[in-house]
Amino acid sequence: MGITILRLGHRVFRDQRITTHVALTARAFNANKIIISGEKDDGIIETIEKINKEFGGEFKAEYVKNWKNALNKSVKEGDLIVHLTMYGLDVDKVKEKIKKEMKNKNVLIIVGGAKVPAEIYQQAHYNVAVGNQPHSEVSAIAILLDRISERKEFEDGKIKIIPCEKGKKII
Amino acid sequence: MGITILRLGHRVFRDQRITTHVALTARAFNANKIIISGEKDDGIIETIEKINKEFGGEFKAEYVKNWKNALNKSVKEGDLIVHLTMYGLDVDKVKEKIKKEMKNKNVLIIVGGAKVPAEIYQQAHYNVAVGNQPHSEVSAIAILLDRISERKEFEDGKIKIIPCEKGKKII
Repeated sequence: MGITILRLGHRVFRDQRITTHVALTARAFNANKIIISGEKDDGIIETIEKINKEFGGEFKAEYVKNWKNALNKSVKEGDLIVHLTMYGLDVDKVKEKIKKEMKNKNVLIIVGGAKVPAEIYQQAHYNVAVGNQPHSEVSAIAILLDRISERKEFEDGKIKIIPCEKGKKII
Repeated sequence: MGITILRLGHRVFRDQRITTHVALTARAFNANKIIISGEKDDGIIETIEKINKEFGGEFKAEYVKNWKNALNKSVKEGDLIVHLTMYGLDVDKVKEKIKKEMKNKNVLIIVGGAKVPAEIYQQAHYNVAVGNQPHSEVSAIAILLDRISERKEFEDGKIKIIPCEKGKKII
């Protein structure tokens, strides 16, 4: 089943690179899609399309004006809703439960912006923390996906990087 | 032994938030220090000091004008030098070797900027990739530190967050 990221409260000027890194991390760690809410930002969607063309895969990035619509759709379809927050339960305490439940459910992972509405904490089946220290939504999404999914190899890209000890090998 | 991050090629305007997230991730995952080279940026160092005051610990952030000085110092002191790059060997293939070697050595982890000099690839004992897809230096540092260290609890902060299922618990 598939994994979608819902990024809340994106601000074009302040968050462009962070949200791009969230999206690229999601893609590299085998999520299927990112939905970006907040300010509309075509630049990120173009970046993702460019990376897909060069490195392969069909990771999708789309914009929604209102995150409630995306959340309601997921609730209605019975998705497993996971909210990443430093106030939640530690990822290593809940990962096995999440992995079990996601076998026959799509997963919506919500990553917050500046201020997350209480409704998100309530609607989420799991409020998950990667430690209870402030760090980054980018590292939080990486660790969560690392625990419940796996890094992806893309076979259809123009560019393929071959792991090597020193220097760069590119096909 | 201790872990230091060396961040190359920081640009104040473009990288401020990404480098801050690298620093906070390093702090939360038990590194001791970040050395930032490139453009001088007091904002990041102030942010880290503020986080230390509120959440505890003694994570250090400092600026160096020339990364070569920091690298040479590490080479001279016999540190284990690890370079994070998408062209390197996968972290899960090398993590055990690194963990073994870091038992009696300090570790310098280098994370690149836009263009990393060939010298870094040569000087590094390990060029390490977190997958060979483009994603983020923030997620790369999180996964590497996750594999070779552990997330840290800080006991001396003004603020402590208690993990909880719904909502927020703060002492």
